[in-house]
Amino acid sequence: MQAVNLEEKFSSFSDYWNPKIVGELNGQVVKIARIKGEFIWHKHDMEDEFFLVVKGRMQIKLRGEEVSINEGEFYIVPRGVEHKPVADEEVWILMFEPESTLNTGDVMNERTREDIERI
Amino acid sequence: MQAVNLEEKFSSFSDYWNPKIVGELNGQVVKIARIKGEFIWHKHDMEDEFFLVVKGRMQIKLRGEEVSINEGEFYIVPRGVEHKPVADEEVWILMFEPESTLNTGDVMNERTREDIERI
Repeated sequence: MQAVNLEEKFSSFSDYWNPKIVGELNGQVVKIARIKGEFIWHKHDMEDEFFLVVKGRMQIKLRGEEVSINEGEFYIVPRGVEHKPVADEEVWILMFEPESTLNTGDVMNERTREDIERI
Repeated sequence: MQAVNLEEKFSSFSDYWNPKIVGELNGQVVKIARIKGEFIWHKHDMEDEFFLVVKGRMQIKLRGEEVSINEGEFYIVPRGVEHKPVADEEVWILMFEPESTLNTGDVMNERTREDIERI
């Protein structure tokens, strides 16, 4: 039995915007991702989404507003709210979501990841 | 709209083993607690429990085993597994749990906290 070291997990891959599952509990998953640049506008109709910044600083654009999330801070995007994650520099994020949550929400395109790897 | 700063939240109280809710999503809650010393043996029959160490280092004793969780590490205690959290020095932890999770699981005693404060 061993704890999961976040730094080790983040260091085990290098692609951006490609979340990995690092834990599962109560029908929810713990995902991590390295992000850099701009993601797409999307929303999740049925799921709230938790973003914790482990390293760096990101913004979540909402229609008409913007939330900055610094290292050691989290933000919960409520279901149904359109949002667009943005990271000027590389950011490491931890997410807590239902297993069913799709990274691009209501949008399906080349950035959609359907078979999330467990690492 | 503002992110939640974990350091600020942890600094806003000082009691040990008294979890506070700092976020809610998808029927789950995000709780934080300052812990020091030994907790009691207990288990959660229906709920897996996620512990992320934000500051310090803790142990989770399991029957016949022990897991160390250092800063930046997490561990998920599966439902039904008896465990006893221990912290030699003060530790700050973040937990993800269903709203229904009781801190002392199947044990009700003076350490049980039923009305968890939202901060």
